[in-house]
Amino acid sequence: MSSEIGKILKINIFGESHGKAIGVVINGLPAGETIDEDELHRFMARRAGGKTFSTPRKEEDKPVFLSGVLNGKTTGAPLCAIIENKNFRPGDYKEFSATPRPSHADYPAFVKYNGFNDQSGGGHFSGRLTAPLCIAGGICMQILERRGIKIGAHISVLANVGDADIDPCNPDQTMLDAVKAKAFPVIDDMAGEEMQKKILDAMSNNDSVGGTVECVVTGIKAGIGAPMFGSVESRLSAAIFGIGAVRGIDFGAGFTAAYMKGSEHNDPYYIDNGEIKTRTNYHGGVIGGITSGMPIIFQTAFKPTPSIGIEQDTVDMINKTDAKITIGGRHDPCIVPRAVPCVEAATAVTLLDILLENDGLEK
Amino acid sequence: MSSEIGKILKINIFGESHGKAIGVVINGLPAGETIDEDELHRFMARRAGGKTFSTPRKEEDKPVFLSGVLNGKTTGAPLCAIIENKNFRPGDYKEFSATPRPSHADYPAFVKYNGFNDQSGGGHFSGRLTAPLCIAGGICMQILERRGIKIGAHISVLANVGDADIDPCNPDQTMLDAVKAKAFPVIDDMAGEEMQKKILDAMSNNDSVGGTVECVVTGIKAGIGAPMFGSVESRLSAAIFGIGAVRGIDFGAGFTAAYMKGSEHNDPYYIDNGEIKTRTNYHGGVIGGITSGMPIIFQTAFKPTPSIGIEQDTVDMINKTDAKITIGGRHDPCIVPRAVPCVEAATAVTLLDILLENDGLEK
Amino acid sequence: MSSEIGKILKINIFGESHGKAIGVVINGLPAGETIDEDELHRFMARRAGGKTFSTPRKEEDKPVFLSGVLNGKTTGAPLCAIIENKNFRPGDYKEFSATPRPSHADYPAFVKYNGFNDQSGGGHFSGRLTAPLCIAGGICMQILERRGIKIGAHISVLANVGDADIDPCNPDQTMLDAVKAKAFPVIDDMAGEEMQKKILDAMSNNDSVGGTVECVVTGIKAGIGAPMFGSVESRLSAAIFGIGAVRGIDFGAGFTAAYMKGSEHNDPYYIDNGEIKTRTNYHGGVIGGITSGMPIIFQTAFKPTPSIGIEQDTVDMINKTDAKITIGGRHDPCIVPRAVPCVEAATAVTLLDILLENDGLEK
Amino acid sequence: MSSEIGKILKINIFGESHGKAIGVVINGLPAGETIDEDELHRFMARRAGGKTFSTPRKEEDKPVFLSGVLNGKTTGAPLCAIIENKNFRPGDYKEFSATPRPSHADYPAFVKYNGFNDQSGGGHFSGRLTAPLCIAGGICMQILERRGIKIGAHISVLANVGDADIDPCNPDQTMLDAVKAKAFPVIDDMAGEEMQKKILDAMSNNDSVGGTVECVVTGIKAGIGAPMFGSVESRLSAAIFGIGAVRGIDFGAGFTAAYMKGSEHNDPYYIDNGEIKTRTNYHGGVIGGITSGMPIIFQTAFKPTPSIGIEQDTVDMINKTDAKITIGGRHDPCIVPRAVPCVEAATAVTLLDILLENDGLEK
Repeated sequence: MSSEIGKILKINIFGESHGKAIGVVINGLPAGETIDEDELHRFMARRAGGKTFSTPRKEEDKPVFLSGVLNGKTTGAPLCAIIENKNFRPGDYKEFSATPRPSHADYPAFVKYNGFNDQSGGGHFSGRLTAPLCIAGGICMQILERRGIKIGAHISVLANVGDADIDPCNPDQTMLDAVKAKAFPVIDDMAGEEMQKKILDAMSNNDSVGGTVECVVTGIKAGIGAPMFGSVESRLSAAIFGIGAVRGIDFGAGFTAAYMKGSEHNDPYYIDNGEIKTRTNYHGGVIGGITSGMPIIFQTAFKPTPSIGIEQDTVDMINKTDAKITIGGRHDPCIVPRAVPCVEAATAVTLLDILLENDGLEK
Repeated sequence: MSSEIGKILKINIFGESHGKAIGVVINGLPAGETIDEDELHRFMARRAGGKTFSTPRKEEDKPVFLSGVLNGKTTGAPLCAIIENKNFRPGDYKEFSATPRPSHADYPAFVKYNGFNDQSGGGHFSGRLTAPLCIAGGICMQILERRGIKIGAHISVLANVGDADIDPCNPDQTMLDAVKAKAFPVIDDMAGEEMQKKILDAMSNNDSVGGTVECVVTGIKAGIGAPMFGSVESRLSAAIFGIGAVRGIDFGAGFTAAYMKGSEHNDPYYIDNGEIKTRTNYHGGVIGGITSGMPIIFQTAFKPTPSIGIEQDTVDMINKTDAKITIGGRHDPCIVPRAVPCVEAATAVTLLDILLENDGLEK
Repeated sequence: MSSEIGKILKINIFGESHGKAIGVVINGLPAGETIDEDELHRFMARRAGGKTFSTPRKEEDKPVFLSGVLNGKTTGAPLCAIIENKNFRPGDYKEFSATPRPSHADYPAFVKYNGFNDQSGGGHFSGRLTAPLCIAGGICMQILERRGIKIGAHISVLANVGDADIDPCNPDQTMLDAVKAKAFPVIDDMAGEEMQKKILDAMSNNDSVGGTVECVVTGIKAGIGAPMFGSVESRLSAAIFGIGAVRGIDFGAGFTAAYMKGSEHNDPYYIDNGEIKTRTNYHGGVIGGITSGMPIIFQTAFKPTPSIGIEQDTVDMINKTDAKITIGGRHDPCIVPRAVPCVEAATAVTLLDILLENDGLEK
Repeated sequence: MSSEIGKILKINIFGESHGKAIGVVINGLPAGETIDEDELHRFMARRAGGKTFSTPRKEEDKPVFLSGVLNGKTTGAPLCAIIENKNFRPGDYKEFSATPRPSHADYPAFVKYNGFNDQSGGGHFSGRLTAPLCIAGGICMQILERRGIKIGAHISVLANVGDADIDPCNPDQTMLDAVKAKAFPVIDDMAGEEMQKKILDAMSNNDSVGGTVECVVTGIKAGIGAPMFGSVESRLSAAIFGIGAVRGIDFGAGFTAAYMKGSEHNDPYYIDNGEIKTRTNYHGGVIGGITSGMPIIFQTAFKPTPSIGIEQDTVDMINKTDAKITIGGRHDPCIVPRAVPCVEAATAVTLLDILLENDGLEK
């Protein structure tokens, strides 16, 4: 239906780009979990704008907790956190725009909501709505990390520049932690430099670029998930496609698997210090919808930012005539760097939910 | 949680490969909808085995309706349809296997269910469980077709052979209908021949191959879906990943979008005979989670069948020792042809559910 | 929506009174749980007809397991059990009845399903559909009993005859076990005799009588449930109202609480052998939606069977004219005795679901 | 799980009595619906304290809309409204209380949340959390009223004083509208005077009283709802038990039905000006879980306020010793008058959800 996901741990995201506030309600958090607010701010900062390549809008994005937290710990009651919008236009009557921006939600939203949706800044479809997702995800990541589960993502491809590879069987967690501290979230900083050049190029042409984000989860034990529609892939993909610009997701070898032989793609088991592991990890940590104990690895494709400074063909939705549109202002020529923590957030929320449903959390 | 999906239209799939029966309960079907059983059998036959390249097990797969149908029309009550298993082993005590087949669900399932799961033939993880999905999907397709919504899929890539392209803005429905009548579901029969050679090659080497399936939906009006986690992509991907061997899904330009510029990927609007359309369809019919009125197009990646005749490394799950496994019997060297109607089925079930949730169905 | 309930443990009931079969799919059962079929048959027999006062239709009601059970133990996969209808009319075209029986679902169902619903024997609205509920409930009761949780119900009032009282703080489990073995489920057999006279009286007058069922749950620890809409009362009432003839439910002092003072109704705490208990149990084991550790006690009101042999006023639904109806055949003049195990079943299914959601089950 | 209810229209209530704010997120509201804020404030005022018999805490309870409303109309995006707590204790470290108040949620909550729950003022279990329910309910009532559906409740019994009866077949809407404008929500003001004496008596004795609320819904057409667990009664009861002090609910004749004969309880149909009606309405507007087109009528039982000024027995939860508690401050000696709009709110939210699920709303 809506901006809601989860089963035992449920998140509900609300807000519109230029409304009074955006926020999230999280239901089902275990009680007594510490929320490290500094850590959460650092996580939120990775998503926030204000960096070189991002939209210049200053968003401090510090969540205010309305409920569910007492003395720095979850109370078990629904947690609500909001971010007040600095550029809220009280009583403002935004002039209605009849010309939808290509590849933005403007036109589908106009039809769905009969024109009553808040158009300003994309309304509820704004990329800004990933901030409450990151509040929820940041909190869940802290809970997971205390149980030894780590989630780390990086830009794997931007434009046509690739980052360094991660060992899918034994990913270097130190490396992924280092990425989190970087201004540009890649493993190989040389590749990062090149990617940033691509972004600058696009920006100087009033254009934009896309990319892919790779996400790695370690520390998840085997046997978590469910067959068929309750699969880890079903649940993760439903969450990940909740991030606006995502166009695809694949697990392990993913689309490459389609080109492999069974003898290549099958991951042989072996015993490693008494533990069952696979020698390769083309399955990406999930088989039959259930975790194998190997790292979960998936790729997410992001489209180039649809807001570009070049004049584009569009229509007048009311009068049903052809029209032109030039989107003014400065735009984020590439959302992929900011999408990295969003992917981590969607992953954290989903995995904590699945864990709570399966065996409950270790105390 | 489980083998269940949907919100207004819910399907529940049950059964184990060698159990007494497999089946599906469908809740929320509108009353008074005709079920054309011949049409349904033809649809089921596309999934069933027995063809040249498929596993030789004779499955007639004719659904028996236990409830919800009267005089060929839905009653509005929950519909249950089952397929009795011909090779049910009553009272049989299948010998427990401690050596999981690589890239099968054997090991994760063993851990999740503490060894109590039915192992025979993969149990609830068997590809056979896509038959009840096809019962549900076949019924939903009939309901959708009566409202002018058509769903058609084909093998887009098998091994490394590609099928002919479909015009994403104006897909040829006659062509896709023709695919449904073919023994090998491709548009370009020459490509189909080559694909079948790849399958024969794999088979003769006791190996297997994977591929991708492209699915196209026409006739869906604009404005259907929801933002964020209620997106059409979230819902479709959750359903599609319910099909066992799926490793990835992408919409429209999909992973290719990551390599495109905004100026290339954005789909300009124009007026075509009074209707709002886009000149290109890189968005794949969905923007911001909501339909644009353009055809919905997505690709699904299938891994090569994990059952291969070559000896493989595995482990003894109980004794935690290394072991070898050679999977006996004949195996389906490529499930992609049979996966084509499964993708259509998952799509039909999901779209009917979304439509019922949005505005209800046109009567 | 429908004939489905639960969150972690979900049951889906399907079937129509004179259809091919009725049944239930249970999702989310823990794997490895023993199903004692004899015990289950005894439980089912308590619901089944054939006794003196019940409808003479012979229903053997032995569930056939289609999936989810192997060697007498749950596999963890969805469990489907069906009961084949002995009086299935294959290919039968039941004559459509335009005159709804008063206080039966005939008229509302006709409107909802546009006349496409299966009318025969009440279709999906038949009391017969409580049989699959009892399959699910009987299985769940076995699982709960192994964890020391006991559910027992009895007829508390029939017509205007009351059964003996149960000590709400310390209910006598032996007494409730004894009730389960009785042909007429009351504690006080003298009261039972009188109740049966009331039923015979009603029967001889072609009339029917109603009553109330009291249900007691012991062995549930404190701290299970949730605030507001996730309350134990919300969940239990939603399940109990799924039984056709239920018209009311109240917990602990229930409607009587409305007439009490706070000083009377409040249950003082005390320490009993190191455990926290209340001296009275007007709260019925649940405060603020969460269990207190005291027995859960609630009353359920059942209306008199609407099928009576007396001529009644009705209408012709099609022609919108007044009409008369006399319901032929023999009818169950009181469904309350058969409702007792149904209340237990709905309770078992709900409590197991809540327990699985809260902390998981003790192994 | 939690403080959430609904299927198409979902509400999520958050907040703790002395936290920063309480509020609600509503998902699934149709776009373009006018919210009359004055009307909403009047509705909220009926629930708010400050009147003679209510707790003296001044709560202005004016909702602030954070999202989902633009220019006085719903946007279709999730609507979030909050009420800031005037007595928020920022940075306050409430002293932990080890002695639970009898018949309050203190003890069950302590066990469930391991002592991490916010105890102050009852935390998330406070009656104050019915304010966000009334925000949601007030909005839904406006939407329903525009479609001719009216919801009205009154105190039917308080202590042992009864209000005037309502004609269940043809309830006087003017009368119920008048009740909404009264300071004390009864039909018969003489009975109201007596009720208020009972409250004053209880107050002067540091005691409290309970009562019942009757709710009447007119304008709902036949055919809305679903069989079994999707019944109107299942959905309404689940919502109504979400209101803290509710101990019972029954529909139509309710518990009285248990004492009636079928020939008395059955409601004969007749044609009234071309419409199908029943001559009596013991079924309370719902048969088989589906509306009959007759008014929906149900009674709800409220326990006496557990906060009383008399010393009570309790325990020390930590040390497991007997203890005494005297609850200081002034208390609301009867919550029933304030519960009346809460019952209407829970009803409005539920019925709008059911209507949206069934056929959608008339535009």
